[in-house]
Amino acid sequence: MANLVDSIAAESGGKIVLLVADGLGGLPHPETGLTELETARTPNLDALAGEAACGLHVPIAPGITPGSGPAHMALFGYDPVRYEIGRGVLEALGIGFDLRLGDVAIRVNFATVDKEGRITDRRAGRISTAKCEELTARLDQIQMPLVEVFVRPVREHRAVIVLRGAGLAGGLRDTDPQATGVPPLPVEITDGAQERTADLLNAFLGAAGELLKDEPEANAITMRGIAALEEIPSVGERFKIKAAALAGYPMYRGVAGLVGMDVLSMVETADEVEEGLRAAYRDYDFIFVHFKKTDSTGEDGSFDAKVAATEEFDEVAARVRGVNPDVLLVTGDHSTPSMMATHSWHSVPVLVRAANARVDEVATFGESACLRGSLGTVRAIDLMPLMLAHAGRLKKFGA
Amino acid sequence: MANLVDSIAAESGGKIVLLVADGLGGLPHPETGLTELETARTPNLDALAGEAACGLHVPIAPGITPGSGPAHMALFGYDPVRYEIGRGVLEALGIGFDLRLGDVAIRVNFATVDKEGRITDRRAGRISTAKCEELTARLDQIQMPLVEVFVRPVREHRAVIVLRGAGLAGGLRDTDPQATGVPPLPVEITDGAQERTADLLNAFLGAAGELLKDEPEANAITMRGIAALEEIPSVGERFKIKAAALAGYPMYRGVAGLVGMDVLSMVETADEVEEGLRAAYRDYDFIFVHFKKTDSTGEDGSFDAKVAATEEFDEVAARVRGVNPDVLLVTGDHSTPSMMATHSWHSVPVLVRAANARVDEVATFGESACLRGSLGTVRAIDLMPLMLAHAGRLKKFGA
Repeated sequence: MANLVDSIAAESGGKIVLLVADGLGGLPHPETGLTELETARTPNLDALAGEAACGLHVPIAPGITPGSGPAHMALFGYDPVRYEIGRGVLEALGIGFDLRLGDVAIRVNFATVDKEGRITDRRAGRISTAKCEELTARLDQIQMPLVEVFVRPVREHRAVIVLRGAGLAGGLRDTDPQATGVPPLPVEITDGAQERTADLLNAFLGAAGELLKDEPEANAITMRGIAALEEIPSVGERFKIKAAALAGYPMYRGVAGLVGMDVLSMVETADEVEEGLRAAYRDYDFIFVHFKKTDSTGEDGSFDAKVAATEEFDEVAARVRGVNPDVLLVTGDHSTPSMMATHSWHSVPVLVRAANARVDEVATFGESACLRGSLGTVRAIDLMPLMLAHAGRLKKFGA
Repeated sequence: MANLVDSIAAESGGKIVLLVADGLGGLPHPETGLTELETARTPNLDALAGEAACGLHVPIAPGITPGSGPAHMALFGYDPVRYEIGRGVLEALGIGFDLRLGDVAIRVNFATVDKEGRITDRRAGRISTAKCEELTARLDQIQMPLVEVFVRPVREHRAVIVLRGAGLAGGLRDTDPQATGVPPLPVEITDGAQERTADLLNAFLGAAGELLKDEPEANAITMRGIAALEEIPSVGERFKIKAAALAGYPMYRGVAGLVGMDVLSMVETADEVEEGLRAAYRDYDFIFVHFKKTDSTGEDGSFDAKVAATEEFDEVAARVRGVNPDVLLVTGDHSTPSMMATHSWHSVPVLVRAANARVDEVATFGESACLRGSLGTVRAIDLMPLMLAHAGRLKKFGA
């Protein structure tokens, strides 16, 4: 349906705000039978639910647990399988690296190897971030013919390499053998167009080995997720909207930038969201607002902390409601049940508030209540067409 | 799934009636929170719901507002994107023109142009239908080599041209520039197979300009939706059913004819529907019954008139129920909320009454109640396999 939606997108219509609480969905507490969202005191989300069409969305497909990249691509109306963003690219976006079309990004792990070159620790004992910064600065001095090379720290044993130049390719095989007692693998190609990139990366590995060989904490690196930044049609081209992102985390800012949204100033608090939204509202057709804490508290495995984060999100929702956008869609990108302490595949509550929404009986925003909503259960990728439709931004298909 | 369904269609089974109230779905009245269907007194539809499996259908995909053509194609089990029927073809079907395979149909607007040939009114002041008939009769005299040319009035400034002959093609560019102050565009090709058709239509435009040049009310025409009638596999071939259509409006009669249904006598009233259905029931496996007023009153923007039309439809449903078909599916082709006064993307209530239907708790036919139905929310294209299944007309898939 993607091309159908693109083909009927109208040049004008109402303004849309997509408000995303990362990892919003959860699982019931065994004692109360209520999820984090159902436990939290959320008068503003409940009021919105009462004015809205409610439902649930499945992020990718039943049973599929998404990372943040694919989950947000789906929310933005992109088939996350077709537009798969490589791990290296996501890692580079996650540190706010200014990645450009055609760049190849690689996730790097610092490691230790013995005298025979066999891996003894795939994560180099999780070296300090300070050490990571020191070593990446050293590797950043490596120069290669006809390409620019950037080496940047991420955190602990994790770093990123970016190659910039003509004729580079992604999709090469990882060098991390996923085991100790064996040496790292060489970079290997899976098709002919990758040969030059493989040569460059293997040369880089050799140079890095030289620079690190006397380093007791981390005398080797492995490469994973070697990925090129490929062209993605923008939301402007596809849906004829001028779009902006208000987010505090580099990863989400990065993914929003990938699909052509203007990435505005960092926001984290309710005050910052309100200020950012009011400042941007006149100039944009579509504004994506991202709230992170519901995910990070879920990943920490703390039910109570996720409840508290959800209550904080409720205040953000109140501020967004105060701006009174023509179409307001509130949801999460995926579930992060605190009892699982990780992302999950479970469906995610969603509400759409608009003058032409089919308002239903749902008056509390939660996993169970939304089952009775008029939107039913849809795929995340269907939410963009639904937002556009409610904003009067999709023309009739056929006569 | 289309090919799967076709491949397991059985040669025999029960009789199916598909009863469609055009534009059935609606939106809640702001004062009562009830839609048109929920407001209307519909004892017969409610009784049917109580005996049936209920649910909702999404006509095309979430957020997509369909025209009548694609919406009915989906109800008939055809992917409306794959079998997209061009605007010219639908317009010709809409006036009951006997279109044949390979014909190219074009929607025409009468317009006015100034001395320099620049459009001054794209709709020629919406000339009277009588004037339209006079001018189309004049243009119908245009003759072209090796093709037959038909020019027919539609209404006001709208008309239809049909070219009939070998080697014609559709998909050529519209000549309506969608603006005034500029001349109409020539017909242009988008691929090589359209060259002859473009030459013919440009010659027609020249001849039409001559015939209209002294006509004060409408001295020009524009062409839109240039479309060929392409072959569509019939419901008989695909689903092994002998099918008939009972409808009062040319457009729906036309679309039913396109998929190989026998188009029976015009019906509008409950009496006519009952009479037509009883007369045809023995001879057909599948009978499509179309009721128009729920859509036209919705398009007029009158909540009360749509409620009244829905109550009229309830009487039609009573008559159809009296015939007691083996499988009776009642639904709409799309929603036409009177508060929007146009087609919309909202889901549409559906009920399937059959001996083997999973009867649920839903005992009133309406948008909210059907959310609790055993069918859940499906796509319109899934309704044909569901009807066939309930009629025992689909064999087991695999062993």
